[in-house]
Amino acid sequence: MAKKPTPSAKPATPGPSAKLKERDAATLKKIRSLADAVAGAALKGKEPRLEIPTRSRSNTVWNKKKGILQMGDAKGERPLFDLKTAKQFMQTTLHASTIKKLIEEGKTSSLRGVFYIAKHTVAGTKENTFDTQDESDPILEDLEVSMGALREELHIFAENRGAMIGNITLIDKGDEIDCRRMGSGGYALPSIVEPDVIQFKKCEAKFVLHVEKGTVWNRFNEDRFWEKHNCILTHGSGQPPRGCRRLLQRLNQELKLPIICVLDCDPWGHYIYSVIKQGSISLAFESTRLAIPEAKFLGIRAKDYKECGLSDAVKIDMEDKDIKRAQEIMAYPWFADNKAWQNEIGLLLQNGFKMEVEAMLNKDISYVTEEYVPARLKARDWLD
Amino acid sequence: MAKKPTPSAKPATPGPSAKLKERDAATLKKIRSLADAVAGAALKGKEPRLEIPTRSRSNTVWNKKKGILQMGDAKGERPLFDLKTAKQFMQTTLHASTIKKLIEEGKTSSLRGVFYIAKHTVAGTKENTFDTQDESDPILEDLEVSMGALREELHIFAENRGAMIGNITLIDKGDEIDCRRMGSGGYALPSIVEPDVIQFKKCEAKFVLHVEKGTVWNRFNEDRFWEKHNCILTHGSGQPPRGCRRLLQRLNQELKLPIICVLDCDPWGHYIYSVIKQGSISLAFESTRLAIPEAKFLGIRAKDYKECGLSDAVKIDMEDKDIKRAQEIMAYPWFADNKAWQNEIGLLLQNGFKMEVEAMLNKDISYVTEEYVPARLKARDWLD
Repeated sequence: MAKKPTPSAKPATPGPSAKLKERDAATLKKIRSLADAVAGAALKGKEPRLEIPTRSRSNTVWNKKKGILQMGDAKGERPLFDLKTAKQFMQTTLHASTIKKLIEEGKTSSLRGVFYIAKHTVAGTKENTFDTQDESDPILEDLEVSMGALREELHIFAENRGAMIGNITLIDKGDEIDCRRMGSGGYALPSIVEPDVIQFKKCEAKFVLHVEKGTVWNRFNEDRFWEKHNCILTHGSGQPPRGCRRLLQRLNQELKLPIICVLDCDPWGHYIYSVIKQGSISLAFESTRLAIPEAKFLGIRAKDYKECGLSDAVKIDMEDKDIKRAQEIMAYPWFADNKAWQNEIGLLLQNGFKMEVEAMLNKDISYVTEEYVPARLKARDWLD
Repeated sequence: MAKKPTPSAKPATPGPSAKLKERDAATLKKIRSLADAVAGAALKGKEPRLEIPTRSRSNTVWNKKKGILQMGDAKGERPLFDLKTAKQFMQTTLHASTIKKLIEEGKTSSLRGVFYIAKHTVAGTKENTFDTQDESDPILEDLEVSMGALREELHIFAENRGAMIGNITLIDKGDEIDCRRMGSGGYALPSIVEPDVIQFKKCEAKFVLHVEKGTVWNRFNEDRFWEKHNCILTHGSGQPPRGCRRLLQRLNQELKLPIICVLDCDPWGHYIYSVIKQGSISLAFESTRLAIPEAKFLGIRAKDYKECGLSDAVKIDMEDKDIKRAQEIMAYPWFADNKAWQNEIGLLLQNGFKMEVEAMLNKDISYVTEEYVPARLKARDWLD
């Protein structure tokens, strides 16, 4: 196979590629120091051991001042000479070696790909390095937290999910993407959206409207909401993946765009908002790179059933598990401190029914895009 | 709300919009004749009844000459004055009326949206028109088949899924999309890809490589496979949705591009191929618009474990349900008649293990893109 040709039509992007090298050099340095510590201990006749920060609810801290979830200081030891941890020790160093190779070759891989790259039978035994991907993914998270490197910096991507359209032009790997001219499909959000891959070029948009599902996004795109209201329109196919969250955060921090969410009026919608805004327990170590404390929740609101004169047809009964989940979310410290959110979830529980964004179609096909959202935006009627 | 402004920067597209009107006029005519038949019977004092073609395995015919699954001639009656069918009769006419409104307003909606639009409590009763979406979706399929109109022609879209990149420029709702310049994310495939929405403008690509998953697509895109091999690269996030299948069919029929699939070596991968190639039982009435009898299956092949010298680590044991599914697929008439496919599934069963496309990463990160697929393409080594 010939080596990758340099496409002549592509504009030179010296800044980003220099940054890429810098970022990769920093990650490689971290991997080497991990390896040096192991080798150093071995050469001194000492037991090699790894120190891995603890990713658990008990080691998750709510940073009220910053408005994000963060990881605490607790760490776990992973010594080599311990039957309980020896295999994990081997797996950790094996994945570190794969990541080193990926970075050196300038390639990326999926979680499943890295699992396959590392999976083999240990020579002279019948023991596999990994049996299932369930063993492999947490080891990669261990490496992220112990090296203080984002998964993207380890050259590992997640499934692509979500799309974007609106008044912004961006550069993706040197290609200019005009999000005003993306037809009905839109720009598919990639998994890795770091500044060395994606740069913002020209943006007239004044805010981002983030909706939960692609079908709702289609409604807004078809009604050209982003054009009429000078904004960017995104969706994350349900719980938004890391790439989508990180891109929203960059739009918020770098371009100062408010992120306004339109999600279902149910515990799942509230949880999606909570993750976008404050981060999640499982990714607490990444909150500073993913969370958007300024994100707003515009709707659907529990009051909308009455306020918008919706019909009984849109009600979806709360089941026991919904009630339990709503109560859990109500007790999250960042919602517990917030009177408006206590009222919101309280009214949801009092109503006893959930409502989806699509419920608004019951009034009129374009009610949500042409009346509901514009009126709420104008009144700045949202939850913080 | 101001009316939708005409974006001045957009090129005029008289052809497609004229076509749109023509297509919509034809669909409206079908809805009117359905309504006229109902009203006509009522005015004559006769019982109104609808005739709905039967969508079942028993009414699915394998058209060997065309190489596609088709729907047979069986029909079911849906009389109004029958307790068993009265509600479905009402639901059918209700959805027909929603579709008429969508077409007249030039808007589209999701399956869930149409469900919400039609959902209400019948005046003076406690009876809902629809209780759950499970009742609503089959009624829409009834309308599709009885009117002989594609779902897209009824202005109903599915969830967007899949992406595309490569040597083609297309027009999507008047926007020019250069699929050579779509960065790492690609062009998100919309659900409705009919010629009045999407036109092919300039295509140098010689074939389409369709892969199963977004993560595999990322590997091919990152290695710029489409540029080196002058092709188009698509994925459908697993079982490809209708929009993706229809677009592949249009690329095949209109641009004469071979569609070459790289899927997992397991019954699920074989089934995806079968649906792309011959159509599915549930959508047999649409096969002429969706099936691609010329589609090829390049890999992963059961022989690859030996031929590519793969390690034991890539084997995934066949479970009982996999074996049962493989035997079912082996007995499909279009596979039963095909010696190469009998051998392929026979060897899969004999191996006793499945292999995913990602298994190729076990050899080398770019083995699949730089050695495996190019060698098979060169040798024209694929299953038909």
